[in-house]
Amino acid sequence: MIFKKVALISKPNDADVAETLRAVIGYLSKNKLNITVDTSASNMVDTSGCNVAEIQDIKKDTDLAIIVGGDGTLLAAAQHLAPLGIPICGINRGRLGFLVDISPKEITAALDGILNGKLTLEERIALQAKVERDGKIVSKNNSYNDVVVHCRDAVRLIELHNKIDGAPLNTLSADGLIVATPTGSTAYALSCGGPIIQPTLDSLVLVPISPHILSNRPIVVSAKSEIEIMVSQNSRADAVVSFDGHIHFPLELGDKVTICKDSAKLKLAQPLGHDYLDILRKKLSWSF
Amino acid sequence: MIFKKVALISKPNDADVAETLRAVIGYLSKNKLNITVDTSASNMVDTSGCNVAEIQDIKKDTDLAIIVGGDGTLLAAAQHLAPLGIPICGINRGRLGFLVDISPKEITAALDGILNGKLTLEERIALQAKVERDGKIVSKNNSYNDVVVHCRDAVRLIELHNKIDGAPLNTLSADGLIVATPTGSTAYALSCGGPIIQPTLDSLVLVPISPHILSNRPIVVSAKSEIEIMVSQNSRADAVVSFDGHIHFPLELGDKVTICKDSAKLKLAQPLGHDYLDILRKKLSWSF
Amino acid sequence: MIFKKVALISKPNDADVAETLRAVIGYLSKNKLNITVDTSASNMVDTSGCNVAEIQDIKKDTDLAIIVGGDGTLLAAAQHLAPLGIPICGINRGRLGFLVDISPKEITAALDGILNGKLTLEERIALQAKVERDGKIVSKNNSYNDVVVHCRDAVRLIELHNKIDGAPLNTLSADGLIVATPTGSTAYALSCGGPIIQPTLDSLVLVPISPHILSNRPIVVSAKSEIEIMVSQNSRADAVVSFDGHIHFPLELGDKVTICKDSAKLKLAQPLGHDYLDILRKKLSWSF
Amino acid sequence: MIFKKVALISKPNDADVAETLRAVIGYLSKNKLNITVDTSASNMVDTSGCNVAEIQDIKKDTDLAIIVGGDGTLLAAAQHLAPLGIPICGINRGRLGFLVDISPKEITAALDGILNGKLTLEERIALQAKVERDGKIVSKNNSYNDVVVHCRDAVRLIELHNKIDGAPLNTLSADGLIVATPTGSTAYALSCGGPIIQPTLDSLVLVPISPHILSNRPIVVSAKSEIEIMVSQNSRADAVVSFDGHIHFPLELGDKVTICKDSAKLKLAQPLGHDYLDILRKKLSWSF
Repeated sequence: MIFKKVALISKPNDADVAETLRAVIGYLSKNKLNITVDTSASNMVDTSGCNVAEIQDIKKDTDLAIIVGGDGTLLAAAQHLAPLGIPICGINRGRLGFLVDISPKEITAALDGILNGKLTLEERIALQAKVERDGKIVSKNNSYNDVVVHCRDAVRLIELHNKIDGAPLNTLSADGLIVATPTGSTAYALSCGGPIIQPTLDSLVLVPISPHILSNRPIVVSAKSEIEIMVSQNSRADAVVSFDGHIHFPLELGDKVTICKDSAKLKLAQPLGHDYLDILRKKLSWSF
Repeated sequence: MIFKKVALISKPNDADVAETLRAVIGYLSKNKLNITVDTSASNMVDTSGCNVAEIQDIKKDTDLAIIVGGDGTLLAAAQHLAPLGIPICGINRGRLGFLVDISPKEITAALDGILNGKLTLEERIALQAKVERDGKIVSKNNSYNDVVVHCRDAVRLIELHNKIDGAPLNTLSADGLIVATPTGSTAYALSCGGPIIQPTLDSLVLVPISPHILSNRPIVVSAKSEIEIMVSQNSRADAVVSFDGHIHFPLELGDKVTICKDSAKLKLAQPLGHDYLDILRKKLSWSF
Repeated sequence: MIFKKVALISKPNDADVAETLRAVIGYLSKNKLNITVDTSASNMVDTSGCNVAEIQDIKKDTDLAIIVGGDGTLLAAAQHLAPLGIPICGINRGRLGFLVDISPKEITAALDGILNGKLTLEERIALQAKVERDGKIVSKNNSYNDVVVHCRDAVRLIELHNKIDGAPLNTLSADGLIVATPTGSTAYALSCGGPIIQPTLDSLVLVPISPHILSNRPIVVSAKSEIEIMVSQNSRADAVVSFDGHIHFPLELGDKVTICKDSAKLKLAQPLGHDYLDILRKKLSWSF
Repeated sequence: MIFKKVALISKPNDADVAETLRAVIGYLSKNKLNITVDTSASNMVDTSGCNVAEIQDIKKDTDLAIIVGGDGTLLAAAQHLAPLGIPICGINRGRLGFLVDISPKEITAALDGILNGKLTLEERIALQAKVERDGKIVSKNNSYNDVVVHCRDAVRLIELHNKIDGAPLNTLSADGLIVATPTGSTAYALSCGGPIIQPTLDSLVLVPISPHILSNRPIVVSAKSEIEIMVSQNSRADAVVSFDGHIHFPLELGDKVTICKDSAKLKLAQPLGHDYLDILRKKLSWSF
């Protein structure tokens, strides 16, 4: 694999990323790569010699997207990039993320490796969720971390009828329900009592949020399953469905959210020697 | 104690309660008690021979308030009744509640006992919460179960700076924070991982909701403490404070919620032989 | 598949199972099957017309083993039966188990179906665990639910160095560590905070038992992984490894327990219409 | 309060404490205090000019006991010292404990303050537990952290019948049950899902260990309660009761463990400015 066209995307309006952006642009220019800077980043740094484009206009023939920011920045960019199959490399702003695991200090070494093909391309599964109302699809989105059905406005139990591959699972009275990928298992799902899932597993986890019945526990299912979540007509609170925590769609009583694996994958370009368990230990303060 | 004036309040617009209401009115009429029916109940049953009043107009000299409904109905009525010191007796609609523990079948036996003074008056602590904005009190409410500071609209971490008696406790990144009375310890707080607290203890429990840091755990403190929760200026989501889950007040960044014990108590009139541990076992499917 | 030779095994010395055993023997005799009754069962009932054998002598050409008892009875029998590939059908004593899900009342209908080939053969993964001491294998066992490394004698933290496929995972200070199959995920692992895992997944879950560090959480990994658990030389307590909770082997400091998937499977013969999610709902008091 | 007679006790056979012991003895000698060194410490350092005694011979008229070690060292010493009412000051070996919160670096400043009366004497409640068998008391012990009834030998559910002040609480199938003081709430009880309890509360917490029924949750009760734990005749595993994790007494089926508050208190001598919440934040990696 030879990288020629590189896109550069960052957390917007964040003073800390500007220096990192400059270092990355400097490195890429020196290596004579074709650089496209997303408008999220272009207003923070000098982009002379680069193309500037909206993320929506980043092309399928881009060889690598470099993201500077937190896990949330990478997930937001993935909405556009993952369906095009563009590998993503995440650089953090000094604080390790699960997805943005290259620190600003390691930029040169890490990019030297990656751009010379000394990399691993880790594929993570993605979810596709559809919202059906009165027989019509009213919303459709991808998620790389999780799809969350949650009560809206204030704290009130919602009631959800859940099915797996068409078979009844349970009726859940709770603040909500998370359907997470292995990638998302260390994000919101972990705070709600879900297990950590090895990123390479073809599994999903359903994690109830503050369930009324204490025996409602996280369930790990095959990623080949179709999960259906219906907002019960008995639900007293309004609901909302969130995709990776940044796209929100309000739900009505009776709405059905159907979740299955998407054909696209999230492709993470990582330097050789990348060690998921090491990141896990650092993020969770485990020793060995 | 001799009961002469009795108020009757119910869950509104609930077909199931009408029959129970009629039985209670029949019983009270036969015993020649002065009955005031709240407008929540009066549109469901024949109230001839009774006074009809808004709950706000129920007087301090009322000897007993009978609530027909769920725990939520009782808590909502307590907003008006508890500060007046009126004892409350809860009758459920066939499903045992923690507070409404007299079943429709037991009405006659239970009321016979209570109205003849064969009762226990259990006192439960109440919370008073104030919201301060730019040095001014913008909201003030009582709670008998809990005060909950929560993110608003959609799922997003809020950041809260918490203090106990003026001393820093922690900065919490979470979906929210519950401050619960012993009464509230078996409600929402239990779903979020809090402990059960004996109802007679003069304690509160602070329960983080889906905390980002896994070591954030419930803390039991003296009910004589003053709890301060400040919505951090760094919080990326809007917040709301809820009182017993039915009064909601939107918060702005920098708002301070201060919670302390209220001078009023929630007085529960219960038949002799009332057994909290028995209710606990039934509600949580424990055996002995 | 035609069933001709059937083995019958039961919970020993349990008055409740005798009646069920008689019904099963009656049914099998009437259907002219070749019956071998295990000595665990033979002392409770009249076995005339049947062979009587120790479970170790039950032969590979047995078409079906019927177990009468609880999940524990089935798991103990599986130690001998699963490696021979004999399908197992579990009948409970009136209380639903996760594995013994045919109730005494359903015997005739269920066996009619199964013996006429109207069945599903559900395959569950098994674990093989080896204990290595000073370079030698000192114990080797199969497990169908779980392998548990636990402190011995009294409550004291043990320290375990854990690896996945040779890569360091963590050093755990805890009461112990569970490695569970999907089958075992609803047993001891669930009590220790582990997730439920769909029985068909090719996954294992590692569940720490009362870990000292609160961020030590359950991890779901591929069943193709090799898990290594080493009892640290710093461990202050003696340890023990348990297989399915009924075979125990004492460990010394420095001992290594290596766990991987066994080539044998646990084959469960279930009547058509068997519904895992339905059992889950019943066992955990969920509704739909 | 004027301190004249000081006892010195340490973790035995720990190279790290010797240097700290020397510093403490040096400081105390320079200040002309009457020093008694426990035999746990005396074999590690030069004790010329000091008395040497077994901990059992330390007298009631001792003004202060200084403990060098971990929380466990302090708890073990408390078995003898707390009933005599001797205040205890804990110095750690470089790692903060909940009870041993003076670091080796702060010795001079901290002891200067304490010995000059600039201290707070924090009183913590103690538990007294009796084991009754066939109507006779067969064991009696104090605990400052917790009393734990646990299965013995290997992992197997035990069944416990629990009462509060003579009233049935529940029958628990679990690995065990912890009864913890507020002091003990941050020790083993925290690992098993218990809440943190403010150290000054007159409360206990009952924490089930890996309970079979998922609705079995921690319960906070008044420290004035009498807790009774009876090992059920149905229990299939042997049990043991542990006091502060270092005294163990084997239980038989039918044994009753009765726990109530002891009249003695654990008196902790702490420098002015000692801040429990600060220790909590440091131990649990919380920020403010």
